[in-house]
Amino acid sequence: MSDGTGITAETLGHSVLSQFEGIRFKQIRIPFIDSEVKAISARQKINDIASYDGVKPIVFSTLVNTMINSVVKQADGVFMDLFMTFVEPLEVELGVKSTHRIGRSHNISDNEQYKNRIEAINYALAHDDGQTSKDLALADVILVGVSRSGKTPTSLYLAMQYGIKAANYPLIPEDFERGELPPALLPFKDKLFGLSITPERLSEIRNERRPNSHYASLDNCRKEIKAAEYMMRREGINWLLSTSKSIEEISTTILQQLNLGQAIY
Amino acid sequence: MSDGTGITAETLGHSVLSQFEGIRFKQIRIPFIDSEVKAISARQKINDIASYDGVKPIVFSTLVNTMINSVVKQADGVFMDLFMTFVEPLEVELGVKSTHRIGRSHNISDNEQYKNRIEAINYALAHDDGQTSKDLALADVILVGVSRSGKTPTSLYLAMQYGIKAANYPLIPEDFERGELPPALLPFKDKLFGLSITPERLSEIRNERRPNSHYASLDNCRKEIKAAEYMMRREGINWLLSTSKSIEEISTTILQQLNLGQAIY
Repeated sequence: MSDGTGITAETLGHSVLSQFEGIRFKQIRIPFIDSEVKAISARQKINDIASYDGVKPIVFSTLVNTMINSVVKQADGVFMDLFMTFVEPLEVELGVKSTHRIGRSHNISDNEQYKNRIEAINYALAHDDGQTSKDLALADVILVGVSRSGKTPTSLYLAMQYGIKAANYPLIPEDFERGELPPALLPFKDKLFGLSITPERLSEIRNERRPNSHYASLDNCRKEIKAAEYMMRREGINWLLSTSKSIEEISTTILQQLNLGQAIY
Repeated sequence: MSDGTGITAETLGHSVLSQFEGIRFKQIRIPFIDSEVKAISARQKINDIASYDGVKPIVFSTLVNTMINSVVKQADGVFMDLFMTFVEPLEVELGVKSTHRIGRSHNISDNEQYKNRIEAINYALAHDDGQTSKDLALADVILVGVSRSGKTPTSLYLAMQYGIKAANYPLIPEDFERGELPPALLPFKDKLFGLSITPERLSEIRNERRPNSHYASLDNCRKEIKAAEYMMRREGINWLLSTSKSIEEISTTILQQLNLGQAIY
């Protein structure tokens, strides 16, 4: 529950509940509770669920308004109040009062940062899969790796979450035969980051796209990956194995290794 | 700081600190603190920053391991401990112990859900901007609106954050002349959701792409938007004005109105 999108509450809720493996939770999202009328209706909703299920719902909430908060908290739920829990101690520490301004965290009043994110998404789309070599100088990072090694979703995640301009460029059999990186990448070697993957997993993914093709065969995947990893090592490109990593984990590792995204805001 | 990616800590940190407008914070990300050695190095890093800056850093942390936590907490920082704060009361409420398993929240051990997200990203890319009418039946939602009204980033966000399959389809002058929705959309009217935008903002965005074109002119933007909104009203399509909304706010509104994304996990 939130007076804004509820994304913060949802993210923390998932993290906390993932510590209780084996219990299944049903999730209900109650966003945009920014008035007393909506607070009353949210309270009713929680009460209805409590009486229907016979257990108190766990409510992760980011409500900054004291009045709205007090209405909602009359409901028959277990409240995990993210803001009050952390904002009040911080007020003491910083020696200032918080603004208690509703819906601050995902609105676009901070225009500059939001604009960067949207620009980065457009950049990632325009520079997906080596579509163009134009403006590679503007990239924060250029992901390289064999086809289907996870470059596209990672580029988009870096853009969307962090406003990082991420291009991605495939390493293809022609590059391996020539024994050199794609020529367009040579001026930007310090921006390159590699993704690799196990041959078994790559073959699985490629088979979904083009079943029983040479492209997807385990033998061809083995050859391409071996050649790509050899090339990345030789060129001194940092790389990681994406096989068992989520796009969040891959992105965080890239930021850390390239020392990106340490924002002042 | 986290034993995983730190994305949960970062999201909550931004939300909480956004309540202190006018204060500027410098952000440092310390992910993957999953061993005692790393904990000692993290503690040192915090102490270095504290002595360099002359103020205690505020540390938002999601560390589940008690030993790691106790090492880190010796540092000279103000700790906002997300897990201990909420996990312990939940243990009492649920009557079970938490697993204290490191790096659970963004890893891909929950394969099914992660696979859905990646599939949804691929779906959004393949169905961007009306590229294909194939498999529209598989869409959870089909976004419609004039060119550059925000459909693409919203589709990608829905996919990435929620695993929602979102296609998007432009409404173009030919549709307005014909006075009908694009024929490919007619079987899926219950999946349509519209985005609109103010003519001034649309003209601004289009001018960045194609300066001084008829396409970007304020007059043309006015006409297209008027025709698109008329069509959406007439067809009974839910729509919203994207102008001052972030992709998070647009996405949350769509989920709410179409009653999507109420997951059991």
